[in-house]
Amino acid sequence: MPRYKLTIEYDGTGLVGWQRQDNGLSVQAILEAAVLQFCGQPAETVAAGRTDAGVHATGQVVHVDLPKDWRADRVRDGLNFWLGGGTAAVAVLAAEVVDDDFHARFSAIGRRYLFRLIDRRPPPILDRNRVVWVKRPLDVEAMRQAAQVLIGRHDFSSFRAVQCQAASPVKTLDRLDVVRVGEEVRVMAAARSFLHHQVRNMVGTLRLVGEGRWTVGRVEAALAACDRRQGGPTAPPCGLYLTDVVYAGRDERKIQENADPG
Amino acid sequence: MPRYKLTIEYDGTGLVGWQRQDNGLSVQAILEAAVLQFCGQPAETVAAGRTDAGVHATGQVVHVDLPKDWRADRVRDGLNFWLGGGTAAVAVLAAEVVDDDFHARFSAIGRRYLFRLIDRRPPPILDRNRVVWVKRPLDVEAMRQAAQVLIGRHDFSSFRAVQCQAASPVKTLDRLDVVRVGEEVRVMAAARSFLHHQVRNMVGTLRLVGEGRWTVGRVEAALAACDRRQGGPTAPPCGLYLTDVVYAGRDERKIQENADPG
Repeated sequence: MPRYKLTIEYDGTGLVGWQRQDNGLSVQAILEAAVLQFCGQPAETVAAGRTDAGVHATGQVVHVDLPKDWRADRVRDGLNFWLGGGTAAVAVLAAEVVDDDFHARFSAIGRRYLFRLIDRRPPPILDRNRVVWVKRPLDVEAMRQAAQVLIGRHDFSSFRAVQCQAASPVKTLDRLDVVRVGEEVRVMAAARSFLHHQVRNMVGTLRLVGEGRWTVGRVEAALAACDRRQGGPTAPPCGLYLTDVVYAGRDERKIQENADPG
Repeated sequence: MPRYKLTIEYDGTGLVGWQRQDNGLSVQAILEAAVLQFCGQPAETVAAGRTDAGVHATGQVVHVDLPKDWRADRVRDGLNFWLGGGTAAVAVLAAEVVDDDFHARFSAIGRRYLFRLIDRRPPPILDRNRVVWVKRPLDVEAMRQAAQVLIGRHDFSSFRAVQCQAASPVKTLDRLDVVRVGEEVRVMAAARSFLHHQVRNMVGTLRLVGEGRWTVGRVEAALAACDRRQGGPTAPPCGLYLTDVVYAGRDERKIQENADPG
């Protein structure tokens, strides 16, 4: 049973998230249906990040054990065929054979997310469900200052969903970059791992700073409070993209090269 | 009856194009329904470019005469409200009061289109209906050389739809830039005006060159033939965007500043 690492892209709009659930269609269910068609037998897929309903990915990583020793590019093309050649919400960007001890979730040493906001008076049309619309202009410099407060090793309880199952609220946030790209403000977050809703809660907070409703000091106080009720609101899922998952070895160089978003 | 110039964005997916038709929903019908709601009476809209079914716009220009002297930003916000605040396929990016002799189509002295291709083996997911998918790698340098052949004043009969109603097949193509932006190849075309399907037919031809199936010499021969049967195929509409319409005066500077796509 060779193990394959799959890098996948998906449009989370209308899906219940990565994880298979009874209440709607998940990325996992779509992908595993294609795996079943391709192999003729079911196989379980394990993802690096269990993204929420409505969240997208351009670089989610999954592992799956397949019953036969197919060439990796045949796995990629075969799964994409059964995924409808672009008509489903999921595509396999790359496939490779990995060692049996590779685990998409537990072997990962870094995760990167992108959050896209568009600050303009008219609503976005071509990027509907791809960006979060903010009607007033965002002060990117203020957002950048607030982001500095959050970088580093902290108790992130103020930015942690109540349903979060992590053992500890302490995480190390390696990067939280805020950049303007035309009409968009993009936030790029990098860490070994994140708490549930951490990126969306941090972005919801940065947005308040960008709108001039919160000061940087209030963000400092919110972080120090270690209390979810002191953090900002959860930003909507449609602006969030899982862009990269890093594993030890060669990926470390790639992530350095791709460090600048936009 | 003050005249307003509206700059609009739309997602052409599933629409029959700009022009009102009996066989489906058009951009014009959506916009005029919002105008009717906003004003309480119907008003006809006139567009700079009558885009085809499936073609998008980020900078289509329209004029309309309204029964009252509203402030321009009220017209923009009011129309966007009646357009569903981003839930319809159309939004008004900007509105301004113009002279009565301003005509969106006949006053225009330049039009710019962007065509987006993605050349990769896996299908596009997040940009479905936004780019044209090409499975093999495109040779951008060869496409650029072929584009040089088409720039200038020519009889473009080989790139003209049979149903084109223009008086003459002779047009002056000011720019036809081909650039790579990550996984995408973008073609930017600028001219005073274009023949029906001219951009899509030129892009369909450049694609053949990029795939190595046509030489630059064959593009020269196709242009010289002045025969639609000698030109390349019509590229699909979903990669095409009307991005700018230029009018005499201050717009000329703006278009210079925005000259580089990507």
